[in-house]
Amino acid sequence: MFPNILIQTLNFIVRLYLVNFLICDSMANKQVKNLANSMEVVKYPDQADWRNLLRRPLLDHTELYPLVSRILEQVQMNGDNAVKQFNLEFDKAEIENLRVSQDEISEALQSVDHSLKKAIEVAKQNIERFHSQQKFTGKVIETTPGVRCWQKAIPVEKVGLYIPGGSAPLFSTVLMLGIPAKLAGCRRIVLCTPPSAEGKIHPAILYAAHLTGIEEIYKVGGVQAIGAMAYGTETIPSVYKIFGPGNQYVSAAKELVNREGIAIDMVAGPSEVAVMADETSNPSFIASDLLSQAEHGPDSQVLLISTSEKVVEGVLDEVDKQLEVLPRKEIAAMALRNSKLVVVNNQDQMVEMINSYAPEHLIIVTKNYQELAGRIVNAGSVFLGKYTPESAGDYASGTNHTLPTNGHAKVTGGVSQDSFIKKVTFQEISEYGIFNIGAAIESMAEAEQLQAHRNAVSIRLKDVFENLK
Amino acid sequence: MFPNILIQTLNFIVRLYLVNFLICDSMANKQVKNLANSMEVVKYPDQADWRNLLRRPLLDHTELYPLVSRILEQVQMNGDNAVKQFNLEFDKAEIENLRVSQDEISEALQSVDHSLKKAIEVAKQNIERFHSQQKFTGKVIETTPGVRCWQKAIPVEKVGLYIPGGSAPLFSTVLMLGIPAKLAGCRRIVLCTPPSAEGKIHPAILYAAHLTGIEEIYKVGGVQAIGAMAYGTETIPSVYKIFGPGNQYVSAAKELVNREGIAIDMVAGPSEVAVMADETSNPSFIASDLLSQAEHGPDSQVLLISTSEKVVEGVLDEVDKQLEVLPRKEIAAMALRNSKLVVVNNQDQMVEMINSYAPEHLIIVTKNYQELAGRIVNAGSVFLGKYTPESAGDYASGTNHTLPTNGHAKVTGGVSQDSFIKKVTFQEISEYGIFNIGAAIESMAEAEQLQAHRNAVSIRLKDVFENLK
Repeated sequence: MFPNILIQTLNFIVRLYLVNFLICDSMANKQVKNLANSMEVVKYPDQADWRNLLRRPLLDHTELYPLVSRILEQVQMNGDNAVKQFNLEFDKAEIENLRVSQDEISEALQSVDHSLKKAIEVAKQNIERFHSQQKFTGKVIETTPGVRCWQKAIPVEKVGLYIPGGSAPLFSTVLMLGIPAKLAGCRRIVLCTPPSAEGKIHPAILYAAHLTGIEEIYKVGGVQAIGAMAYGTETIPSVYKIFGPGNQYVSAAKELVNREGIAIDMVAGPSEVAVMADETSNPSFIASDLLSQAEHGPDSQVLLISTSEKVVEGVLDEVDKQLEVLPRKEIAAMALRNSKLVVVNNQDQMVEMINSYAPEHLIIVTKNYQELAGRIVNAGSVFLGKYTPESAGDYASGTNHTLPTNGHAKVTGGVSQDSFIKKVTFQEISEYGIFNIGAAIESMAEAEQLQAHRNAVSIRLKDVFENLK
Repeated sequence: MFPNILIQTLNFIVRLYLVNFLICDSMANKQVKNLANSMEVVKYPDQADWRNLLRRPLLDHTELYPLVSRILEQVQMNGDNAVKQFNLEFDKAEIENLRVSQDEISEALQSVDHSLKKAIEVAKQNIERFHSQQKFTGKVIETTPGVRCWQKAIPVEKVGLYIPGGSAPLFSTVLMLGIPAKLAGCRRIVLCTPPSAEGKIHPAILYAAHLTGIEEIYKVGGVQAIGAMAYGTETIPSVYKIFGPGNQYVSAAKELVNREGIAIDMVAGPSEVAVMADETSNPSFIASDLLSQAEHGPDSQVLLISTSEKVVEGVLDEVDKQLEVLPRKEIAAMALRNSKLVVVNNQDQMVEMINSYAPEHLIIVTKNYQELAGRIVNAGSVFLGKYTPESAGDYASGTNHTLPTNGHAKVTGGVSQDSFIKKVTFQEISEYGIFNIGAAIESMAEAEQLQAHRNAVSIRLKDVFENLK
């Protein structure tokens, strides 16, 4: 088995290298300068072509499953030892104590820049304000005299939050997952995040966790982190539901443990933004929004739909200008090559196109944005008006940034307190209650040929009548 | 390809035959008479053995995937023709018009017995009363002056309801899925259910659908129904989310289309009940509840946890008596052979055991059932007190009977209006709002090395300052 996994790991490393190579190659590519020319402008497409126009890249991790399963299996069998071995292999980190110590946390709290601390506190406050209003309190409904039914929100007992590491620490995601988990009242909240080669966690992640009240933090990333939270190890507890973003290996691992019965927040695909614009929209604002989506990764999905050709032209110019000064311009440029700027005849088409695409993020900057917002039925999170960039929701306005991608916005919303609770139904029926609905149950059970279901009522009705005597 | 699918179909038929054979064989088995002796009583188990004691049968449909995928593929490729061919193969029904006509519905409405109609109406009224209270209305939260955020419930546009057929028509499930779908406001609700060999749908199903306001009903069952609703055919529209119970082939089909991005209500396993009892509990009521669960199928899960040995003995006696007269006694007997009657030392153990098992249905009939109910954290639906049989929730009290099995109650509740909507977040930020939170976003984006995210705010802040001049 071991040689096999070595081969697969090698395969994995070669892939990573290739991706890096592609990015570096593109860095050297002079064409980046005139990127806007490579963005695809589509004017007045025929409705028959929409489907093709809005098609997303196929999201399929099955190719990764053999390697990912092997890692998961190792973690399941060998626990901490496997986790430590993969830490060394994939993150070059030799970790003796997987759990982040109190000392490490105290040290991190010192080292975060004051202004960043303040910013994280502003975000935390807004996210808390928005998510605290999502608390569900069921009321008792007497559906028939003597028949009392209610729903009760009960937190998921044990949840796991995965926070990717690497050069850019996603401390904002600590807030977005940790705050609703805390508000929901989850008893045990476990956070896993990959260590640096020096065996450290980025202090901003530790600060955000501390501020949110999360104390159980483990130094483990990637597939091995998902495995540890799914199966548990000597040190890391298993959880019932795993949340958080990650690369395609992490996504594949979440898919696989989900098939074994561990709940996950969502199957995540590349991030997406769509912008709806008209002749009144500000091209430089739009360009900045498209670019902020594009910098996420080469596979980011960027879409502009406009009733104005002029605005599209303006956006093309502005993208060129703004892209030039971006540190991640090569990544953004790759994403923009797959972007679509679509000119349509009227707002009805715009609305219909958006509803059939179901973007993760939707920015509406038409004059009548409020009216259009009322007609949107498929989107993850909607940003209204010229002063509402997606960045606001990504960080600090208070809404959640963990949102459905890949068209899943047709059926589900983003992470909220709901994601950390379940609504359990309760009912209590009195003698009078069973007297009132007993005959209906008997009749229906009989017709469904479930006699024992009927008997469970008949035996009680008999008792009620006895008591009446 | 065709010979291959024929072989697989043959395989499928042989399996069905074997299952029937097992059941018939058991019918001839005289041991059924003294069934209670074969129920497993476990007294005061060591906590270390709980895990094993509460272990469910492994739920794994992967063996069925090759056959099920083949059928799904055929439906995807050949649409109506494939559906009709499978109708003929599996249901022996030659169906020309897949959609149930208005005439057929009118005819069915005539043929349903008056008292059954009345019963269905009682159930409908209670289910509607309970589920209508689940309507979500988000309020606007001003998280920071000028930053307005809200959630809006938007119905899933197109949903599909699968209702199994066969000898016992599950018209109650039409109410349980159709009523919340209607209340949520789903624009298109499609119902698929297998026809009889005569090409008919059971009139009670059509009556329940009519009462619920569901008009789009198709005569197709099994894997082919799931395929039709997932991919669409010439006649049957594709939907975004598929609901409903079914046999293991239907479950496998739902799992497979789910992997392709079609949402499903839940991965369903065998139905389960657990009863918590003490010395005050009524053994004959308990026996009736255990039996009503057991009659669902040979794989039903039945669990009694009691602090009183005497009550367990009473239940054993009562099961013997009540089983004798059941039409489905052979099925119930098979399920009871896997049942567990557990005697524990105290109520703390009882609560802990239930929370670690997470039953689909939980009946609490101890003296202090209200107190214990407050300590339950993992269960699908909870029934309180002696006059509250599970049958009530299965049919007519108002709560939903589509509930999480196989331990999923740890993370999710049953079907509700929530299952048919998604909560979409909206936000609108004013000049003053972006002025208030802009700096925090800039600082966080910078720290996450996402400069374009920062720019999208900076460019707007600049504009705000210009306007101030």
